[in-house]
Amino acid sequence: MKWLLVLMPLAIALEHFAPDRPLLVFVVAGLAIVPLASLMAQATGSLAARLGPGIGGLLNATFGNAAELIIALAALRNGLHDMVKASIAGTIIGNILFVLGVAMVLGGSRHGEQRYESRAARTQATMLTLAVIALVLPAVYRAIVPTEEAALNSMSTFLAIVLLLVYVANVAFTLMHSKVPKNNGNDAHADTLHHGPLWSPARASLVLGAVSLGIIWLSEILVGAVEPASKSLGLSDAFTGVFVLAVIGGAAEQATAIVAARQNRMDLAMSIALGASVQLALLVAPLLVLLSYVIGPHPMGLVFGPGLVVTILLSVMITGQVASDGRTDWLRGVQLLAVYLILGAVFFYVPNASG
Amino acid sequence: MKWLLVLMPLAIALEHFAPDRPLLVFVVAGLAIVPLASLMAQATGSLAARLGPGIGGLLNATFGNAAELIIALAALRNGLHDMVKASIAGTIIGNILFVLGVAMVLGGSRHGEQRYESRAARTQATMLTLAVIALVLPAVYRAIVPTEEAALNSMSTFLAIVLLLVYVANVAFTLMHSKVPKNNGNDAHADTLHHGPLWSPARASLVLGAVSLGIIWLSEILVGAVEPASKSLGLSDAFTGVFVLAVIGGAAEQATAIVAARQNRMDLAMSIALGASVQLALLVAPLLVLLSYVIGPHPMGLVFGPGLVVTILLSVMITGQVASDGRTDWLRGVQLLAVYLILGAVFFYVPNASG
Amino acid sequence: MKWLLVLMPLAIALEHFAPDRPLLVFVVAGLAIVPLASLMAQATGSLAARLGPGIGGLLNATFGNAAELIIALAALRNGLHDMVKASIAGTIIGNILFVLGVAMVLGGSRHGEQRYESRAARTQATMLTLAVIALVLPAVYRAIVPTEEAALNSMSTFLAIVLLLVYVANVAFTLMHSKVPKNNGNDAHADTLHHGPLWSPARASLVLGAVSLGIIWLSEILVGAVEPASKSLGLSDAFTGVFVLAVIGGAAEQATAIVAARQNRMDLAMSIALGASVQLALLVAPLLVLLSYVIGPHPMGLVFGPGLVVTILLSVMITGQVASDGRTDWLRGVQLLAVYLILGAVFFYVPNASG
Repeated sequence: MKWLLVLMPLAIALEHFAPDRPLLVFVVAGLAIVPLASLMAQATGSLAARLGPGIGGLLNATFGNAAELIIALAALRNGLHDMVKASIAGTIIGNILFVLGVAMVLGGSRHGEQRYESRAARTQATMLTLAVIALVLPAVYRAIVPTEEAALNSMSTFLAIVLLLVYVANVAFTLMHSKVPKNNGNDAHADTLHHGPLWSPARASLVLGAVSLGIIWLSEILVGAVEPASKSLGLSDAFTGVFVLAVIGGAAEQATAIVAARQNRMDLAMSIALGASVQLALLVAPLLVLLSYVIGPHPMGLVFGPGLVVTILLSVMITGQVASDGRTDWLRGVQLLAVYLILGAVFFYVPNASG
Repeated sequence: MKWLLVLMPLAIALEHFAPDRPLLVFVVAGLAIVPLASLMAQATGSLAARLGPGIGGLLNATFGNAAELIIALAALRNGLHDMVKASIAGTIIGNILFVLGVAMVLGGSRHGEQRYESRAARTQATMLTLAVIALVLPAVYRAIVPTEEAALNSMSTFLAIVLLLVYVANVAFTLMHSKVPKNNGNDAHADTLHHGPLWSPARASLVLGAVSLGIIWLSEILVGAVEPASKSLGLSDAFTGVFVLAVIGGAAEQATAIVAARQNRMDLAMSIALGASVQLALLVAPLLVLLSYVIGPHPMGLVFGPGLVVTILLSVMITGQVASDGRTDWLRGVQLLAVYLILGAVFFYVPNASG
Repeated sequence: MKWLLVLMPLAIALEHFAPDRPLLVFVVAGLAIVPLASLMAQATGSLAARLGPGIGGLLNATFGNAAELIIALAALRNGLHDMVKASIAGTIIGNILFVLGVAMVLGGSRHGEQRYESRAARTQATMLTLAVIALVLPAVYRAIVPTEEAALNSMSTFLAIVLLLVYVANVAFTLMHSKVPKNNGNDAHADTLHHGPLWSPARASLVLGAVSLGIIWLSEILVGAVEPASKSLGLSDAFTGVFVLAVIGGAAEQATAIVAARQNRMDLAMSIALGASVQLALLVAPLLVLLSYVIGPHPMGLVFGPGLVVTILLSVMITGQVASDGRTDWLRGVQLLAVYLILGAVFFYVPNASG
């Protein structure tokens, strides 16, 4: 995977020397982010393992979706609010439909029926329903009652704070109920976060800093190229945001979840896929709403278009149904993938389906 | 609690001598209803314990929501149909989000994971879904198909009768499956209804009559003051109906549910909170629809505004998810309270959010 | 039941000699289809039992909804697309609300609490949610984004293919996980399909062919009479399609499910009622969409009216709630029947409620 790092200078060069080929710039910059996201996960995991489950868990929670957050901030600065929202929605449904679906199909076809602890999965699924409610309501009220922009923005700020508080409660609950560290110093919680060799704190911090800068740089290139690139392919902005941009930021996590399912560790696969969606909905999205007051041309409300809202609502509904009884098999994976295909088709055929 | 009874003469005096201070009248009349509702619960419980689970259960079912019913009738007589609907919706979501949420947070933070019998809770949650369907459909059809008021009223009457029949089936099922009375004459069912000293039937009947009169009187004062009071606070009628009026009628039950959760009797807490919502949706609301033909200026249909419908639908959805696997903890309580906060924010920021 | 076969010549004669009495023609043709559907189930079951669970299961899957399919094709040829959609929606909700509701009431009132294997029921309920998503999305996007008819038709074709692939996966999963045939050659799977005496393959094939022809003939008569018949009763087309036509095609299966519940074989009753709905949503409906390009005046999209979509969505929601914990009782049956009554009332009172 490390050889993918050569793509970074290539992307920078292409943006400079071939600005008239946005599709090429977009593809190379997108691919170049993947190894950086992987390095960032590695560095965060190393730090988390050293610092113990308490601070380590919080660190991981903060940096876990860092790539998505940095890309979104770049889009926010350029005023591409709709792209940010499409990307948030896309990453949420990508995790719970595509990642979970592939994990269930690959895990189930090798191991037959797989089991996982249903209580934690239920609570995470409920977190997503909670986030959906916070997204559905403003959209519904804007549709049925004439509402001033200022009121919507105040409401968004309040809802963002409520979601962040629920996120803090979620982290606190997880820390309080995570198992006591074993003798060897690696506890079950850190184990779920760290894969690969353990780095020294100094090295991990250095990598974290360098990689963050790299992703900031590449994100700008990516965001600059996304609109002309989708136009050159005849794709709508909504399709690109929901189904292309979303895949790039979460590539590292997606691979981890699928590998875990193949190793019959369905608990870990579920917790990564659902957990990443919950973090995005309860941490990244509200943070972006609050940061939009400082960054970018004008504040971004928590008001998603009706198309995106329906998409997230239905995805969360079926995931709640599939992931509630502690058992999975490949047929359930097929069901989730089919819903992902159906959503993709709608966004492909209906221009501006995000409403 | 009994010293609160002095508020009743105070409320009557204030309405007479300070009609220009509606907020004060509203607050005092609202607080004065709380001890009366508690006395009514006490009297009904005493009668129920004497009469055995059969007639006693029915009696309790009828008088359990008597305070809510009496307030709603007063509003109906004054033609405040929207206020009635907002109050019904508010009491339903207040019970399943606020009361259940507080009960889970307080119970869970003291006892850790708490257990309850999931089958009964599931059936009650399904009852709420059923009621939501009866509320959603007329609203949806009015929105998508031009429908005459007369057809909507006939439909409402039919739906009200169906809901009442389901309520009767629910009571019959509960009576058939409740445990056989123990030797001491107090059976498990009566136990769930009665708290405090047992009164003689004569005393209980006397209290019931006197208290009913008091609540009728106070309800009129309350309803008369509610509109000017909300205006003086800059609150919308919808916010007042859903989040203020709703809390007053159900205060006694709310306290009981929370105390039960603290005592680690989560079964009882769930059954009170869900049961009160089911009674409201399947008994009080349809009764009001039927009574509106006799009382008040014009019949009240079962057609709720789209805002209220979405609010109830989402609340019932997340409650069904939280209350289905027989286990609760404080994080789930936080989830329910967060949804309540989110709904409150929307109704606060969007004037006339009930649509 | 066999004496009902005399109704077939009667229906043909009536259509010829009394074309001015469409209601009589409709009723007689409708009743005449019932014994033919029963014979077809018998013949398919016999063939399935002979051919083993593999090919037999597929055969049954294909012919199980043959009567519904043939009636729908007749309507399609006459361009009655709305009637086809209403009938599909009606059969789905009729199976999961009416058939399941009656089965639970009759089974539960005789046997008390009944148990069934919840995992299979959950997977089937999720299949219905999946199908609902495929129906909801096109309707939603047509409502919120101006979409060209051509794009909707391309999308419908794609969605139909996805649904068919999921159906194939469902059949493959069932075949792979069905039990190994017992010594006597009758395995558990065939047992669920076959009721009554076993016919020879030759006789079964002959009956299958003859009966198919009879149903084609009667379907044409039925479809020709349906519009004038509903008009003469003052019923809307939507009501007839959803609540009358739907009952006729599925009469044989409905009887089987209810008999199974009375015999305390709730697993079988659930699998017939849910399975028939899944087949209709994942096999019959997409097949009709694809066949509409060959048959009939113009292609039929998978875009249902908003009224039908809401109806199916809510029905699937409450069925998922009722049929997820492996336990049923008569109260749950009452809940499903009440929802069916509520839907019936809405379609009765609101002309063209299918939107």
